[in-house]
Amino acid sequence: MSLAWWNGRALDAGEVRIDPGDAGFLHGDGLFETLRVDAGTAGHVDLHLERLFAGLRRVEIEIPEDRTALAAAVAAVASAAPRPVARLRLTVTRGAGGTPTRLLAAAPYEPPGAGQVRDGVDAILVPDLRIDSRGPLIGLKSLCWQANRLALLRAGRAGAFEAILLNENGRLVEGARSNLLLALDGGLFTPPLDDGCLPGIVRHRLLAAGRITERPLGPEDLARARAVFLTNSLIGVLPVGRLDGHALPRLPPPDP
Amino acid sequence: MSLAWWNGRALDAGEVRIDPGDAGFLHGDGLFETLRVDAGTAGHVDLHLERLFAGLRRVEIEIPEDRTALAAAVAAVASAAPRPVARLRLTVTRGAGGTPTRLLAAAPYEPPGAGQVRDGVDAILVPDLRIDSRGPLIGLKSLCWQANRLALLRAGRAGAFEAILLNENGRLVEGARSNLLLALDGGLFTPPLDDGCLPGIVRHRLLAAGRITERPLGPEDLARARAVFLTNSLIGVLPVGRLDGHALPRLPPPDP
Repeated sequence: MSLAWWNGRALDAGEVRIDPGDAGFLHGDGLFETLRVDAGTAGHVDLHLERLFAGLRRVEIEIPEDRTALAAAVAAVASAAPRPVARLRLTVTRGAGGTPTRLLAAAPYEPPGAGQVRDGVDAILVPDLRIDSRGPLIGLKSLCWQANRLALLRAGRAGAFEAILLNENGRLVEGARSNLLLALDGGLFTPPLDDGCLPGIVRHRLLAAGRITERPLGPEDLARARAVFLTNSLIGVLPVGRLDGHALPRLPPPDP
Repeated sequence: MSLAWWNGRALDAGEVRIDPGDAGFLHGDGLFETLRVDAGTAGHVDLHLERLFAGLRRVEIEIPEDRTALAAAVAAVASAAPRPVARLRLTVTRGAGGTPTRLLAAAPYEPPGAGQVRDGVDAILVPDLRIDSRGPLIGLKSLCWQANRLALLRAGRAGAFEAILLNENGRLVEGARSNLLLALDGGLFTPPLDDGCLPGIVRHRLLAAGRITERPLGPEDLARARAVFLTNSLIGVLPVGRLDGHALPRLPPPDP
């Protein structure tokens, strides 16, 4: 049993039960963050909370806690989280009866193995489950994630780790659960937010460090890339070894 | 306390608690139906279940119950539902640990009053929360409904009952919680499914009865319409009396 934090109090994770009238369950009306926890310490808490609070303002959900209080709750749940590595999920919904739901819970996480890091993972291109770069939820880490689940189901059937998605203009956007980097023309590029991708934390850190650059990309760039990488807070930076079953060239990943 | 039905068994609605690991809560990964219950009897159960099962096939969720078993559960929950009118929600999610969640619960529902039926309700046009008619979830009554909630928040701030939404081509699609009918050129028209609207049950019945016709519509059609109606299973057919604060002409609604 691991520790959770629910609406301001710490408790055993097994005690958390969601009201069926919660807006998160009724309508996916909430936001979430996934943090990686290494040996009891959550990574980049400030960046995750900054993104969360920006999203909450956009969807007009106001929670009683400020960043300091949420950061303390994250630290407490992280310190009791499974080791060596855990995933910590922070969920905020519009709740039921006017009170937002806030939930922090951790679960064991198995990072990509040495073979995956060395050889890369499989990905497929899913052109038909398109992202609308002008959609109302673009840029939000919304609970409305069913389209991503459908893309991952398809990836799973193909034995792949990730599904790469396009927007309404046929441009590369992101993976169903990761941002995308392409090594191209001597640089390392990621689709711009305007093309509809999520402002991922690893992506943000690589941009801030000047290691990658935003640039509109198309499927044709996948074919000519010198390497393709996926990024998210759990996997860090992971190479794609095969796309739709074809081997891709590989380069060392950038340091996140 | 009212009766609910949860994963195959009847119980008091207050006993239902959702696992925080349920895919419905984690990712809005499920579908729902809203049925109107009048004096203990749910309306058009067959049509709702037909739409639900078609959607479940699309999102690859398989439930243990067939239509007959679900219809019996609907009848049981409806017969114990608040009177005179209730809303019954049927929710199916991908669940947790490989078992889909199935939940039926009823709540009191106050139908539109005589004044609203006579004078019509207020609506606003929300052009920026656009619907992607080629999106992966189009046509599904998905739990991923946060964009609709945001549109309804905006309607609520304007004192309006409904927000009318456009697609990526600027065509009229639907209200955030209703389908749309326009009286125009001597006929009664509703946007086609291809433009991204939900296949609503009242809309379906009106089409089947030959009382309305599908036709692509634009915002300019709202301005010249001889009447505008909203339809859903709870409200039936309800006239729009004012759009963005301007009075609309009115005609008697079609019989659903």
